[in-house]
Amino acid sequence: MVNETQQHICSASSSSRSDGSSSGSESSKDNSRCSTPVLDADRHERLREKMRRRQEAGDKWFSLEFFPPRTANAAVNLISRFDRMGAGGPLFIDVTWHPAGDPGSDKETSSMIIANTAVNYCGLETILHMTCCNQTKDDITGHLQKAKRLGLKNIMALRGDPSGEEWEEEVDGFNYAVDLVKHIRNEFDDYFDICVAGYPKGHPEAESYEADLRHLKEKVFAGADFIITQLFFRPETFLKFMKDCQSIGITCPIIPGIFPIQGYHSLRQLVKLSKLEVPQEIKDVIEPIKDNDAAIRNYGVELAVSMCRELLDSGMVHGLHFYTLNREVATTEVLKRLGIWKEDPRRPLPWAVSAHPKRRVEDVRPIFWASRPKSYIYRTQEWDDFPNGRWGNSSSPAFGELKDYYLFYLKSKSPREELLKMWGEELTGEESVFEVFTCYITGEPNRNGYKVTCMPWNDDPLATETNLLKDQLEKVNRRGILTINSQPNINGKPSTDPIVGWGPSGGYVFQKAYLEFFTSSEIVTALLKVLKKYELRVNYHIVNVKGQNITNAPDLQPNAVTWGIFPGREIIQPTVVDPVSFLSWKDEAFALWIEQWAKLYEEESPSRMIIQYIHDNYYLVNLVDNDFPLENCLWQVVEDTFELLN
Amino acid sequence: MVNETQQHICSASSSSRSDGSSSGSESSKDNSRCSTPVLDADRHERLREKMRRRQEAGDKWFSLEFFPPRTANAAVNLISRFDRMGAGGPLFIDVTWHPAGDPGSDKETSSMIIANTAVNYCGLETILHMTCCNQTKDDITGHLQKAKRLGLKNIMALRGDPSGEEWEEEVDGFNYAVDLVKHIRNEFDDYFDICVAGYPKGHPEAESYEADLRHLKEKVFAGADFIITQLFFRPETFLKFMKDCQSIGITCPIIPGIFPIQGYHSLRQLVKLSKLEVPQEIKDVIEPIKDNDAAIRNYGVELAVSMCRELLDSGMVHGLHFYTLNREVATTEVLKRLGIWKEDPRRPLPWAVSAHPKRRVEDVRPIFWASRPKSYIYRTQEWDDFPNGRWGNSSSPAFGELKDYYLFYLKSKSPREELLKMWGEELTGEESVFEVFTCYITGEPNRNGYKVTCMPWNDDPLATETNLLKDQLEKVNRRGILTINSQPNINGKPSTDPIVGWGPSGGYVFQKAYLEFFTSSEIVTALLKVLKKYELRVNYHIVNVKGQNITNAPDLQPNAVTWGIFPGREIIQPTVVDPVSFLSWKDEAFALWIEQWAKLYEEESPSRMIIQYIHDNYYLVNLVDNDFPLENCLWQVVEDTFELLN
Repeated sequence: MVNETQQHICSASSSSRSDGSSSGSESSKDNSRCSTPVLDADRHERLREKMRRRQEAGDKWFSLEFFPPRTANAAVNLISRFDRMGAGGPLFIDVTWHPAGDPGSDKETSSMIIANTAVNYCGLETILHMTCCNQTKDDITGHLQKAKRLGLKNIMALRGDPSGEEWEEEVDGFNYAVDLVKHIRNEFDDYFDICVAGYPKGHPEAESYEADLRHLKEKVFAGADFIITQLFFRPETFLKFMKDCQSIGITCPIIPGIFPIQGYHSLRQLVKLSKLEVPQEIKDVIEPIKDNDAAIRNYGVELAVSMCRELLDSGMVHGLHFYTLNREVATTEVLKRLGIWKEDPRRPLPWAVSAHPKRRVEDVRPIFWASRPKSYIYRTQEWDDFPNGRWGNSSSPAFGELKDYYLFYLKSKSPREELLKMWGEELTGEESVFEVFTCYITGEPNRNGYKVTCMPWNDDPLATETNLLKDQLEKVNRRGILTINSQPNINGKPSTDPIVGWGPSGGYVFQKAYLEFFTSSEIVTALLKVLKKYELRVNYHIVNVKGQNITNAPDLQPNAVTWGIFPGREIIQPTVVDPVSFLSWKDEAFALWIEQWAKLYEEESPSRMIIQYIHDNYYLVNLVDNDFPLENCLWQVVEDTFELLN
Repeated sequence: MVNETQQHICSASSSSRSDGSSSGSESSKDNSRCSTPVLDADRHERLREKMRRRQEAGDKWFSLEFFPPRTANAAVNLISRFDRMGAGGPLFIDVTWHPAGDPGSDKETSSMIIANTAVNYCGLETILHMTCCNQTKDDITGHLQKAKRLGLKNIMALRGDPSGEEWEEEVDGFNYAVDLVKHIRNEFDDYFDICVAGYPKGHPEAESYEADLRHLKEKVFAGADFIITQLFFRPETFLKFMKDCQSIGITCPIIPGIFPIQGYHSLRQLVKLSKLEVPQEIKDVIEPIKDNDAAIRNYGVELAVSMCRELLDSGMVHGLHFYTLNREVATTEVLKRLGIWKEDPRRPLPWAVSAHPKRRVEDVRPIFWASRPKSYIYRTQEWDDFPNGRWGNSSSPAFGELKDYYLFYLKSKSPREELLKMWGEELTGEESVFEVFTCYITGEPNRNGYKVTCMPWNDDPLATETNLLKDQLEKVNRRGILTINSQPNINGKPSTDPIVGWGPSGGYVFQKAYLEFFTSSEIVTALLKVLKKYELRVNYHIVNVKGQNITNAPDLQPNAVTWGIFPGREIIQPTVVDPVSFLSWKDEAFALWIEQWAKLYEEESPSRMIIQYIHDNYYLVNLVDNDFPLENCLWQVVEDTFELLN
């Protein structure tokens, strides 16, 4: 008996106490007071712990490298790529340091800001590269402080390419990556996870392969947590390198850098920069097809897949690092063929979580920003903390100013001409606005033959979930109930449901039906009469731009509209209809009429006047049907309203 | 339109802001940060606000007066009475000040401690009487400070009866109730709600009825919030008094004191004390039946009902105050016949809430103390706060010491002889213990013909809810799975369900199936093997008295096992299985074997050795079936375990 039980004893306890600092009962006490349920260990672990855990579990993983873009437009595209490639489940991404591009600045294209966006808005574990040569200690400390402030937790410490003709070592300067590693550990203690570069063929400037290995060991012993290697062309190159590292006492993870060949010219350029030689057997294949991009990419994918398979099969490799060159197709293809691209990404919460350490306890958001999560994160970035994942404490700030949120990545991705095609070159009345909303819902082309793929309140095409409501939404938009957010009711579907599921498996998810729309004051008058019949069942909140404010929310309390029940956990309620933050959202939602739509037209033009009229006179309405086990009554409410009007 | 909407505008907001101190947006911001859902406004309002709200809503209410008991046994009985009569829904109870009984002391029979128990353990809004004559200012301040510390929020300020032959006014002393009212307001500002006494016939010592009215006005103007009157025999006495009060400018609530005649002698004694005269028409009825207690009580009930009806029908009276004389039958009967006894008390949470202001945000408890709520409140009374209704913050204390909790009101209500009859004069082996558990579940008499109506872990007869599981519980107890706590799974029953419902109407309540029991190490060995099959579905926690600790709770997180979804509110999860507090409960649960059961027997006696053996060798097990929408699998787990053993 005793033997049997002892193997289990305190197993849960020991796994939850990784710092090992406190005694059993003390630590337990604190644990019980942590009122934020840990739904997703990923949000609480450091990168090096995640790596260890994945390795121990025998999971294979991958990571993706990107470089900062040159233009603001390219930055918008890159961030969409982060979202799409992030869905495949990389353990982390990394962003290179671009010394010529003012990498530590606040420019929308800087390394720092791109990494910031990846962490905070895309929710990706991110490594920021940083080079040290030709920089002062103060500059570097400044960059590191800023990175920390922005929520970045991982640094790839590099030397960088010396500028000038002759490179001379500076006394007390940063001459090698190891100096940067030491500096980070000196100034920031254990705050950052540090990655360093390894050269399977030796650094081109090193005296010898062996000398380069010794340099690598120095970097590791100075405090680096893991190594990512330079690209290479043959698996045996990496496997030999790894054994050589181990034989001189390097025990940290070493991640092979994989470069799927994507085109003749990019290969040539990369080879030139890295001073590597392409093996003859590869040259022999490529040269004859050098003008056939598709053929080269197919070959590159083939080659990468076979190399990765060999690495993984060796048992020495647990993760693969991909040099994407900011491209999507080849890397995704390789990952899918290797079977390590997550086809069905399990959502830890219904919304994409931010990877900022400050936000790791955030587990509830108002539903209003569901289609504008980046705006929500931006407007709450100054909040000091998220106790219990809620709304900061009473001494911390409210929503960020509306005027601030027109950051480049919050703007519509489509240029003005495209928006005009979608939303109408010329509006003839409120009905032409109804038509735009209707086309967005149905996916049908508008009267000029263009599909409406985005709206001011909704950067992306309609969510899969909204499709569940499509027919009803179409009907009401046609009649001037201009919907901008909605969800169906759900009475306990498995947490693994492909459309509405989220959270760990074995749980059940629930939703109350929700509908949010703009509509005219005539419709609101009728709606309010109808709502009297539904007083006990439907919570409503109706506001206009002037601040008229009608609600039956009891004591202005939030109403949970999405929640999940999981094995061995407290209830998670990640989405609420909060009457107080609705007033902040209202300002943003009304402003979008003007900023994103009206301003497409000339001042004083009839089209602009129509949007301005809607902005000035319409109401923003949200409705919640509390009776989630019954059929959604919100459509009946709208139906009754139209009937009353007729 | 505008007229229509304005009447609603911010209606919710204004009702939630009774202090009127802050501007709209500021106050709203704070509201949104209140992460504790206000399920029950009663827990947050002052008594005077509750009175006003009830009056505005046109609700009739009642209150109950008790006096402190003379003996510890009588105190135990009185507290059971608080629980039973509290279920009828009094707006408050009050406890008289008993100068001869050391009323401010820590004795279990003191006014202070009885009022403390009513507030903290029975969850009743309570007024503590306090008299001031013959006491020093310091004494009085000390009593008030203690009352505040214990969570008492309401004081009935009285003069009290002067002692000694000749009463002389002391300069600067407390000669009248008005001095006490002023003192409370001076020293404690607006902290306490203050009640004063009114005399519908004038105070017996007052110069005149008019002079007494002027004294009353002084007390009100000194800061009293409402008036409770001395008893009277005719409704017109009260109605005249009320009009006279109003005519001289007394506008606060005046609550008539109702005395249902319950016996000849008690009436005579009360009349003598209060120096009132019993009207001739009452004497005429009573005198002929003075030896027939039942007849007098029936008459008393009849009389009280008709007087109360007349008062309520006058439209001037909203609440009735009953002098119960610590008796239950007559007052309950009157209230039931008046229709203001709450027959179906709606539970705001599945457990009885405490009325201590510190605990008003408490909205979650571990399930373990479900049958010993007073012990739980006692053991957590030192906690500084209940942020989000959870487990205090990291700087606040752990569970109170086990040694402290043998307070009189935590002891079993039954004397030793009775317990021996229930639990066995002589035990012959572990099987005789199994039999006691089984008889408790089934309600059948034990082998000596006695019913087992309580157990060491369960002061009260089985909960209605447990009846849902009776057959299964009987079967497993017979075989040595000694259950002490359980609940069935529930998948969304209406919150108004008479057995499992709680919280506001219009909601849905849920439960995960729970089973907690003591059992032998042989059974635990088999159980652990069986549980492997249920690893993903069942959370378990198994401990013995020595602290062996086996659990699969992820990261020692609490598991919500009771929760409710309500209109316009966040999710409420009032009961959790918390692996950390389970270890505190374990100590208490094992100690009860010894303290309450083993110690009934002589030292070294075989019976005592049997209980000691169980205490030393059995395990305490809790099981949660996470799959609440499916049929409870815990019975199958137990079944499989028995099968494996065979």
